[in-house]
Amino acid sequence: MAPQFGSPPRTFKPMVQAHTRMLDRSVPQAVKAAVMVIGGAEDKIHGREILHAFFQRSGGTGARIAIIPSASREPSVIGSKYRMIFESMGAESIEILDVRDRDQGSNESYLEYVYSCTGVFMTGGDQLRLCGLLAETRLMESILERVRRREISLAGTSAGAAVMGHHMIAGGGSGESPNRSLVDMATGFGVLPHVIVDQHFHNRNRMARLLSAVSLHPDRLGIGIDEDTCACFEDDGSIEVLGKGTVTIIDPGDITYTNQSLVGANDPVSLHHLRLHVLSYGDRYSIPMRRVVSTGQPR
Amino acid sequence: MAPQFGSPPRTFKPMVQAHTRMLDRSVPQAVKAAVMVIGGAEDKIHGREILHAFFQRSGGTGARIAIIPSASREPSVIGSKYRMIFESMGAESIEILDVRDRDQGSNESYLEYVYSCTGVFMTGGDQLRLCGLLAETRLMESILERVRRREISLAGTSAGAAVMGHHMIAGGGSGESPNRSLVDMATGFGVLPHVIVDQHFHNRNRMARLLSAVSLHPDRLGIGIDEDTCACFEDDGSIEVLGKGTVTIIDPGDITYTNQSLVGANDPVSLHHLRLHVLSYGDRYSIPMRRVVSTGQPR
Repeated sequence: MAPQFGSPPRTFKPMVQAHTRMLDRSVPQAVKAAVMVIGGAEDKIHGREILHAFFQRSGGTGARIAIIPSASREPSVIGSKYRMIFESMGAESIEILDVRDRDQGSNESYLEYVYSCTGVFMTGGDQLRLCGLLAETRLMESILERVRRREISLAGTSAGAAVMGHHMIAGGGSGESPNRSLVDMATGFGVLPHVIVDQHFHNRNRMARLLSAVSLHPDRLGIGIDEDTCACFEDDGSIEVLGKGTVTIIDPGDITYTNQSLVGANDPVSLHHLRLHVLSYGDRYSIPMRRVVSTGQPR
Repeated sequence: MAPQFGSPPRTFKPMVQAHTRMLDRSVPQAVKAAVMVIGGAEDKIHGREILHAFFQRSGGTGARIAIIPSASREPSVIGSKYRMIFESMGAESIEILDVRDRDQGSNESYLEYVYSCTGVFMTGGDQLRLCGLLAETRLMESILERVRRREISLAGTSAGAAVMGHHMIAGGGSGESPNRSLVDMATGFGVLPHVIVDQHFHNRNRMARLLSAVSLHPDRLGIGIDEDTCACFEDDGSIEVLGKGTVTIIDPGDITYTNQSLVGANDPVSLHHLRLHVLSYGDRYSIPMRRVVSTGQPR
């Protein structure tokens, strides 16, 4: 199996002397595939920074973009909205893969497009709906295979971001001490198998629910992404932050204790010795090294 | 000057081999002074666990308790409520120090009581009001001096908790990426000078505001206390958790970077390499060692 984005060799601990690894900037960004995990509510009107970055990472004016609006209950509306945006940027080709039942997950013309596309964009909506319609369909398997081979860029916003991990936050609450019942877990597409994604993160006060999720799966990295913010996963396992807000990383790599399996579902959880990073624009974090490798410049 | 509660020798780093330091349990809890920082909304009806712990740490049936209701705009009502509670527990003596203007901060009968009391309880309300009325009065200086000498226990709930640090969170918001304008800072009583306290913590989704406060003062320890939860500061600099929720510790001791001074007040802040602990009932954290030294037993 090809290496997967964000797959952390758990024995590869941060080294103090490790050099900051810089990406080769001579490779045009436009042809470098990425997995772009967007916290929802990304700017669709003004600078469109994040959507434009996806357009570029899908090939710019050579981009052939597939839009999957299946998370939404209004797939036509939301699909058309994104089509107009990528059209206005000058994409070569755009198709909406409007899957509304699992049978369409084998649709031959959709499959054909997926094999010729350069980027796939998953919209917001309900992550359980998106997974229910697409998980393990030929269409999704084909997309995931092309992502694993670094042949295409994949972006997801809101629900489309939540599905990126293997363990997926399907829902939950806020305003409580972290506890198991504060978060509903399900299974995502596993594009970034070692990560648990939460979105609309500080905007919807989801720290306690992400901590609750991490207590259930302390072998994963919790990543909370704010609105109009993107965690852009590169093929070296690093994440760069784009957009207006923060990306919060909860790293339980050195965790010494959790009482999660010892207490009731509504009891508060203990989590001792987590590492926490709040990243903003331009900051870059390496998952294999488990540390920040470079900082952004204030703009 | 006598050592202060929670004063962290910053050069004393955690040692892997350090033994878990257990308190001498043969010393009756009732006569061991503590600083009890309560996250608000503590149980006043059923088990009254936290209030009973304060009663015990003030001497039990020998307790002489002073209640300071000055944070509240209804000091008579709230003062009487706590008087009834401590009376029903069997305290030897209770006085309400109902300071409503700064002149009363020199009231001789209040001062006399403070010199004979064994515990002081500060109620909730508005922390700016409490500090405005009492900071640097003879009354408050006398209380703080007796606390520093470990002669009396001091408890504060909600606003009464917020005032414990030197840097005090006076107000703020939620639902945003951490940023400087998300938190209003003022000056507290400095009982625990190296700590920034936040209360009603996960209940009111205050993680982003406490992170914002820590970005402003990365030489302090951020401590978020949930409702009906108490961080009990012992004289060895350790904190034990009582009550129903969690105590969250944000330790910037190893911070490698913050952009706080480089960006605008509304811009998101970066905070790289924080240590995060979520503690629940019975967990004990050592401020000098900067690590959890023992874990509670599920109940």
